[in-house]
Amino acid sequence: MKPLIAVDWGTSSLRGALLGGDGRVLDEMASADGILSVPAGGFPAVFAANFARWRDGRDTLCLISGMAGSRQGWQEAPYCPCPAGFSDIASRLLWIEPGRIALVPGLSREQSGVPDVMRGEETQVFGALDMLGLADAQLVLPGTHSKWVRVSAGRIDRFSTHMTGELYALLRQHSILARTLPADDGELDVDAFRQGLAHARESASLLHAAFSVRTLALFGRLPAAAMPSYLSGLVIGEELRSQRLTQAGGPILVIGSPALTERYQLALQSQGLTSQAVGSAATWRGLWTIARQLGEFA
Amino acid sequence: MKPLIAVDWGTSSLRGALLGGDGRVLDEMASADGILSVPAGGFPAVFAANFARWRDGRDTLCLISGMAGSRQGWQEAPYCPCPAGFSDIASRLLWIEPGRIALVPGLSREQSGVPDVMRGEETQVFGALDMLGLADAQLVLPGTHSKWVRVSAGRIDRFSTHMTGELYALLRQHSILARTLPADDGELDVDAFRQGLAHARESASLLHAAFSVRTLALFGRLPAAAMPSYLSGLVIGEELRSQRLTQAGGPILVIGSPALTERYQLALQSQGLTSQAVGSAATWRGLWTIARQLGEFA
Repeated sequence: MKPLIAVDWGTSSLRGALLGGDGRVLDEMASADGILSVPAGGFPAVFAANFARWRDGRDTLCLISGMAGSRQGWQEAPYCPCPAGFSDIASRLLWIEPGRIALVPGLSREQSGVPDVMRGEETQVFGALDMLGLADAQLVLPGTHSKWVRVSAGRIDRFSTHMTGELYALLRQHSILARTLPADDGELDVDAFRQGLAHARESASLLHAAFSVRTLALFGRLPAAAMPSYLSGLVIGEELRSQRLTQAGGPILVIGSPALTERYQLALQSQGLTSQAVGSAATWRGLWTIARQLGEFA
Repeated sequence: MKPLIAVDWGTSSLRGALLGGDGRVLDEMASADGILSVPAGGFPAVFAANFARWRDGRDTLCLISGMAGSRQGWQEAPYCPCPAGFSDIASRLLWIEPGRIALVPGLSREQSGVPDVMRGEETQVFGALDMLGLADAQLVLPGTHSKWVRVSAGRIDRFSTHMTGELYALLRQHSILARTLPADDGELDVDAFRQGLAHARESASLLHAAFSVRTLALFGRLPAAAMPSYLSGLVIGEELRSQRLTQAGGPILVIGSPALTERYQLALQSQGLTSQAVGSAATWRGLWTIARQLGEFA
């Protein structure tokens, strides 16, 4: 198998890894060239500028997941409808240069006439399953727009998007609560975070629960420095409450940055649920698994 | 009974009415002198500037409800703890000038160690009950921070705050959804509003439901002009879902501006619930009822 350039090209950032035929990561890079910063028609040039040194003189395969395959990206790779398994996305690559550069499609799902979508997370999910040898799992990929994913018999049959990270930032920076909160988030205050989780569990809606940041400040019940952790507990607690997870639904995996993974694992623990953390290696593994499947075609 | 100057002094606005001894409104005023615009120590002067013409040479009583009684206001009128009836607030006025100017206290409530508060809405609630001759009711006072209030045997025994109006504005102006929404809200699109209500009812959390604004736009399922109404349906629908109202809980009253009242009554209708609208007259009636009770003391 030729060397693989694995690329996660998102809205605001671009990350890449050079992988050997055995899947080992030989080199990594990251840049701020997210798709929103690429001018119209500029994708080939930005791609070349970022990856010339890995491609130079070598026969490489490049697989790109994430928003680069969206309508605002390099080209639009149509969504695969759910349920979808690994082979569905691997067989629907959108080739930019046949045999050399391809975009991995995202997934779509329809529920009661309302669509949901993901781009990039599907690759992380299949990578994590491959790393752990699992065919059934419940996964959360926390972030600005968290994804909850259920995998049954190797296929993603259900997923949903939650605007948790974005809502946190909106409440943190632009709402009346911003007056109560200190300028910096500071270290995670685990007790305050757990207090937020508990209040979210008892509340029927974040619309109500969020107001407690203000009243706890008003009555001097929580120091200002603990407020960001408390608010984080409220929004993550709301997200978890809406999932109604049980351990019987399969192993629970958390795929994300170390800081967010810590919070989600604490939140799952507070509901008596055990989970396993999977780092960003899941992306490279997902893309490498697609490359391996292409094998003779690439 | 001497003439009453009834004042609703809020965060960003000041409204007043001159009432005769029979409760009739003789004159009304409104200004932008909300408490946040009053400089330190400036309340007596701002009050005099706004109400001198009604007080001039006459023996009047002035009752003020709203945020003027908060820590950031003229003076702090301590909260009455719930359950609280009309006589509790009427007997705990904070007199600025004995017999002439008083602040009406707000209410506080404690649930599972988390406080909730209101200032001004309690006066509207008791005014509405008096207008309609009710001792039991379920009320919503929609706005930036909506209040849901339950009255049993003439006492407010439960209430909760929902940051519905503020969340709508945050999502509308500062979130990723802002890219999808037109610059102006435009007229209410009743069908899109109802579609938002329906999706909120089926969703376990606004964190998830709000993302549908983006996906419906992405798949061309809802025209941009209808999006603000759809989003409004999502947030109001979420608020209602969390209330679990039934008609058996007593008459449902909506106290607010005509535009918001229309939306909340549509939302209640969509759940098969009938409600009654009460306009801003409820504030004047509430303050006049307190004045009447003071009778000989004033």
